[in-house]
Amino acid sequence: MPEFLQLLPLQDALDKLMGAFDQSSAGSGVIEEEVDLYQALARVTAGAIIAPHPLPSFARSTVDGYAVRAADTYGASDGLPAYLTVIGEVPMGQAPAFNIQPHESALIHTGGMLPESADAVVMVEHTQSVRSGEVEILRAAAVAENVLEVGEDVSAGQEVIPAGTQLRPAEIGGLAGLGIVRVRVARQPRIGIISSGDEVVSADMDIQPGQVRDINAYTLSALVRDTGGDPVSYGIVPDEESILIATARKALETCDMVVITAGSSASTRDLTAAVINRLGKPGVLVHGVNVRPGKPTILAVCDGKVMIGLPGNPVSALVIASLFVVPVIRRLLGVRIERPRPTLLAKLALNLASSAGREDWVAVRLIKSENGFLAEPVFGKSNLIFTLCKADGLVRIPPAATGLSAGQSVEVTLF
Amino acid sequence: MPEFLQLLPLQDALDKLMGAFDQSSAGSGVIEEEVDLYQALARVTAGAIIAPHPLPSFARSTVDGYAVRAADTYGASDGLPAYLTVIGEVPMGQAPAFNIQPHESALIHTGGMLPESADAVVMVEHTQSVRSGEVEILRAAAVAENVLEVGEDVSAGQEVIPAGTQLRPAEIGGLAGLGIVRVRVARQPRIGIISSGDEVVSADMDIQPGQVRDINAYTLSALVRDTGGDPVSYGIVPDEESILIATARKALETCDMVVITAGSSASTRDLTAAVINRLGKPGVLVHGVNVRPGKPTILAVCDGKVMIGLPGNPVSALVIASLFVVPVIRRLLGVRIERPRPTLLAKLALNLASSAGREDWVAVRLIKSENGFLAEPVFGKSNLIFTLCKADGLVRIPPAATGLSAGQSVEVTLF
Repeated sequence: MPEFLQLLPLQDALDKLMGAFDQSSAGSGVIEEEVDLYQALARVTAGAIIAPHPLPSFARSTVDGYAVRAADTYGASDGLPAYLTVIGEVPMGQAPAFNIQPHESALIHTGGMLPESADAVVMVEHTQSVRSGEVEILRAAAVAENVLEVGEDVSAGQEVIPAGTQLRPAEIGGLAGLGIVRVRVARQPRIGIISSGDEVVSADMDIQPGQVRDINAYTLSALVRDTGGDPVSYGIVPDEESILIATARKALETCDMVVITAGSSASTRDLTAAVINRLGKPGVLVHGVNVRPGKPTILAVCDGKVMIGLPGNPVSALVIASLFVVPVIRRLLGVRIERPRPTLLAKLALNLASSAGREDWVAVRLIKSENGFLAEPVFGKSNLIFTLCKADGLVRIPPAATGLSAGQSVEVTLF
Repeated sequence: MPEFLQLLPLQDALDKLMGAFDQSSAGSGVIEEEVDLYQALARVTAGAIIAPHPLPSFARSTVDGYAVRAADTYGASDGLPAYLTVIGEVPMGQAPAFNIQPHESALIHTGGMLPESADAVVMVEHTQSVRSGEVEILRAAAVAENVLEVGEDVSAGQEVIPAGTQLRPAEIGGLAGLGIVRVRVARQPRIGIISSGDEVVSADMDIQPGQVRDINAYTLSALVRDTGGDPVSYGIVPDEESILIATARKALETCDMVVITAGSSASTRDLTAAVINRLGKPGVLVHGVNVRPGKPTILAVCDGKVMIGLPGNPVSALVIASLFVVPVIRRLLGVRIERPRPTLLAKLALNLASSAGREDWVAVRLIKSENGFLAEPVFGKSNLIFTLCKADGLVRIPPAATGLSAGQSVEVTLF
């Protein structure tokens, strides 16, 4: 009976894979490309972004009011206003053509450029206009009050976005503000996906008794795309060594990583491992992980490229891909700024058993209750894909635990 | 001094907008289109998906072992095995050509089709092969043990995915399993984006003193795309009523919703409201929301289409868009299955003051500490876009509160 020699804990398995990958030639850097800023959402910066000029690039008013020299307003109050001459209005989008001399002021709008020699803005609410050409200042303004100063957001030469940042709408906006409308980002890594198994047929086919449709090609493509990769499908190959080798070799040539979903019987799992070992060095690093679902996982590096053998059953394949394929894609993208993962705290609705030493990932449905969320395990044999459709996320049972108790607080990793 | 007559609380403002939109002709349904399953990730189902056949469509083994009649194994143990004739091996991907008669068995692999008359599978680990053509069964099997029965995942005619579901990798997989490789989904709503302001220039331009680049066109496009909409940019218009009307009218003709980022001075905000009121009925519903940032928000419905006037300053525009534009896009998509929002619980690092009656959204950076996350407010005038780049999400200070205290538990809505 072929079985796994050694079941590695998840984190050890991942460390072993990443370690071998980082030491390889391909692991040393990301492949860059330049994209238009409008297409840059969720892409990852290939280098640090440096501000070419300060932002704002000129002193601006943050309110509607009067640009003044602050010293002219000292002591001003409702009872004892300061009277200032109004010498004009600051035009929007242009440098004002005048300076503010002592006892002068100018009407200014939010976003307007502060005239030279002015150093503060008095809100219009704190002024009174009685005579044309004159304004009463009813409250003193401090220097820089209601003013955005040059470089207050960022200064010239400042690193504003580090390399390895996945761009969100906020960063896209920052780049637009600096006039950077082309960005160097990591090319989307090409992830080859091979489905294997004599029983597997394409999803667009009618099935005969004994056949199942290729679910994994679709779920893995979706996951890869969602993570920022470019899925490349190599179709379905039968459980035949020569065909699997030829297909995997072709995928390795064009792709940055290759994922094979194995036939689910023990013999075809061994076939996948044997094939991977013939494709490059060092070959299979991990065969068998102490995780449920997904024990028969294969992790490998072949001549600098990661290859992963996933269980054939679609639920295990998707869970294991989120644990192993996703981190590799993020490494290929050069993601360095790790943001907190979206999770939700919930109370477990039922007791969950687990074997000590094994890490379990249990699909749960979240139910809103008066005291926050309740996490209800969605049971089902791991082959049932629609079980996952009922779930909102996964709860991890750590290897040291022999289970979790009902009512216990758990962190749900949302899909 | 033009000011807002009435500042509505956020939820009231949103309810008012949604109510008026739902009563309009456009609010009654989504526009559908058909997409390939490979392109269906994050799209929203236009109708319920019904299973055309059961899944699995034939009884399958979940292990490697021997297909048996359970009754033949009753009482079997290590000391007293049941001896069964092995009549063959179930081929993968095909219906077996034989039946299992009493005292017979057949070798079967994981995923293999159960032969007729067999009703259980004994794991290979619980068998022993001593003579060719015979197997010793060392443990009794119950009926249906190690078998996935027909329809155990879903039965024919069952609603497997409700209308209004945003498709995740799991649902994509479920559809593939059922052979549904074309899906009817909501068309991505076209969201027209107009930037206005005499001081605003295109982000690819060099700026002159007094000018600022159009940040909002980029941040809003990114947000719209991220939410499942199709952003359509109508460029930058000066603060001139006739040009703004003409541009907004053009946008309304082709788009499902139009967003105008107003010049930020009070006069240009009034211009936006006046223009919107001329574009259709009922026009402006809300002018001014009791939210910081974003008080000068305009919510309107013009002849069945939502129009939103956002503040010109980029931080306010992005926060307000996530509060008002995002829910409208989800309504246009027909999203009915609302999944829990990704949030993180954190302890506030500092006291936060707020005015009673006003709802505040404060950008925070999350810092991992021994006792979970610490949320540190990222201060900065609301015009500074790079302030948002330093943040991981937003903390809400409810209208009833006059602030939040350091150490208090807060829910962070991640960007």
